[in-house]
Amino acid sequence: MSCKTILAKEISASFREEIKATIKSRGIKPKLVGFLANEDPAAIKYAESTSKTCEETGVIFELRKCNREQLEDLIVEANEDDSVHGIMVYYPVFGDRQDQYLQNVVSVSKDVEGLCHKYIYNMYHNNRFLDEKQTKKCIIPCTPLAIVKVLEYIGVYNPVLPYGDRLHGRIITIINRSEIVGRPLAALLANDGGKVYSVDINNIQEFHRGTGLRLRKHEVQDTNLKLEDILPLSDVVITGVPTPSYKVPTALLRDGAVTINFSAFKNFEDNVKEKASIYVPAVGKVTIAMLERNLLRLYDYRSF
Amino acid sequence: MSCKTILAKEISASFREEIKATIKSRGIKPKLVGFLANEDPAAIKYAESTSKTCEETGVIFELRKCNREQLEDLIVEANEDDSVHGIMVYYPVFGDRQDQYLQNVVSVSKDVEGLCHKYIYNMYHNNRFLDEKQTKKCIIPCTPLAIVKVLEYIGVYNPVLPYGDRLHGRIITIINRSEIVGRPLAALLANDGGKVYSVDINNIQEFHRGTGLRLRKHEVQDTNLKLEDILPLSDVVITGVPTPSYKVPTALLRDGAVTINFSAFKNFEDNVKEKASIYVPAVGKVTIAMLERNLLRLYDYRSF
Repeated sequence: MSCKTILAKEISASFREEIKATIKSRGIKPKLVGFLANEDPAAIKYAESTSKTCEETGVIFELRKCNREQLEDLIVEANEDDSVHGIMVYYPVFGDRQDQYLQNVVSVSKDVEGLCHKYIYNMYHNNRFLDEKQTKKCIIPCTPLAIVKVLEYIGVYNPVLPYGDRLHGRIITIINRSEIVGRPLAALLANDGGKVYSVDINNIQEFHRGTGLRLRKHEVQDTNLKLEDILPLSDVVITGVPTPSYKVPTALLRDGAVTINFSAFKNFEDNVKEKASIYVPAVGKVTIAMLERNLLRLYDYRSF
Repeated sequence: MSCKTILAKEISASFREEIKATIKSRGIKPKLVGFLANEDPAAIKYAESTSKTCEETGVIFELRKCNREQLEDLIVEANEDDSVHGIMVYYPVFGDRQDQYLQNVVSVSKDVEGLCHKYIYNMYHNNRFLDEKQTKKCIIPCTPLAIVKVLEYIGVYNPVLPYGDRLHGRIITIINRSEIVGRPLAALLANDGGKVYSVDINNIQEFHRGTGLRLRKHEVQDTNLKLEDILPLSDVVITGVPTPSYKVPTALLRDGAVTINFSAFKNFEDNVKEKASIYVPAVGKVTIAMLERNLLRLYDYRSF
């Protein structure tokens, strides 16, 4: 089998080292506060890995447990506390639109997860900077950003092409269209020049910037395509289906496809390596590195 | 338009610099002899550029004009002359099977063009080294090798994948199946893991190493496919049709395709840049750099 398995640990190593070196050489003490207001085992596990990685790299991480009724006030308090540089919340909290409200309670200047309206709006509109002089890059949601970094690391972005167009010519399927990962990721990759098929239980949408990248930002079209139409065409297949039973049929993959799973469950069949050229089984460690990277950015933006 | 035009001059620059630096630092005087036994203007032009590039990089280039009846004896004489390290012939000479005979008159140890049977056989069989210890790499024909280097430079080879498999997942169309360029190139790219459609006036063949690269070397299959079937699927389209009238229809290209022309005529339409992500209009300068690179290899192999 010629498939190469690439682990998130390897991909995140250079980011972790860079963050660690920056913190050490500048002698700074960036502080991240995480709010845990649920008993979700996945959230608890994520909080534990975040804590461990922060300790290794020199970020001060403080996990604050609370009940969900207290959460809004505690976020406001952290917004006003100058010793706190970044705030994150382990979602779901209420599991409905109130969570989206909470995402906007977090101050723009401390939103390490990039989930407030300003960042989300800029991302969908392909506005890459916060300021006109283009000195302050926008904050991008951590998991979509992590997957961009994975794609850069494994050679899917072509560095020969101009920045912003480096996915031109790539056909990418994303099986997941959540508001936190799948939909923003489809927009990011289409804004970078890719043709993206976004799959959810209802239909398949196409995100693209048109022939020859004539559009400045992506547009979205509903299609009547099925998985069996798009998988044989896709250079890259990215999955995030949160159930253990879901599997992408290996038989439908293009030979030499790049396969990336960000679900907590294995969304590819065991024989995927007989056909794929690259298999990335998980991205969690890269996500945490991006969380820290966003924190350092926000730390620096304070003093602008 | 987002298409990036990349010139052979840019691609060959680092090779030229490396060759120049090697020759200077080692104080060596590698000598290449070119035999011109025809009046073909393309051959004369190629000889002139070779002469110019050799002078710049420090290679001694001697052009020997002769009539075609003398050629065989002169090659034998150069084979036996220790001051000559590389020999090339400007084909066509007789324009028939006798040219293939002449390619085998050139000594294996001086065949900078990689056209003798031993090198061609090794190339088709994916044998990359001349010796068991794998210290002496085989000589690869200059133009196919140049196109491999172009593909590496412009990001089509994925350096994350293992050496020998770096085209896994790429679909490449080559319009030209000459014995000097198109057919060896199809074999080289398929041996490196690509799925290659080789087009000539009679049919389209597929060169590949099978699903998951299960084969050690490529196999070839005739197909009933037409250009309109394969161009929309192809990540890369490489053309070498020696007529001014032939044009690849831009409408059939996949959006974001990589396009490379090695013909002396423009085989792509003027609007190719409205759809392609990368356009390489010519490869000649890279071919000459590979000629010099092969010469330096053969120079070193003498002393093994």
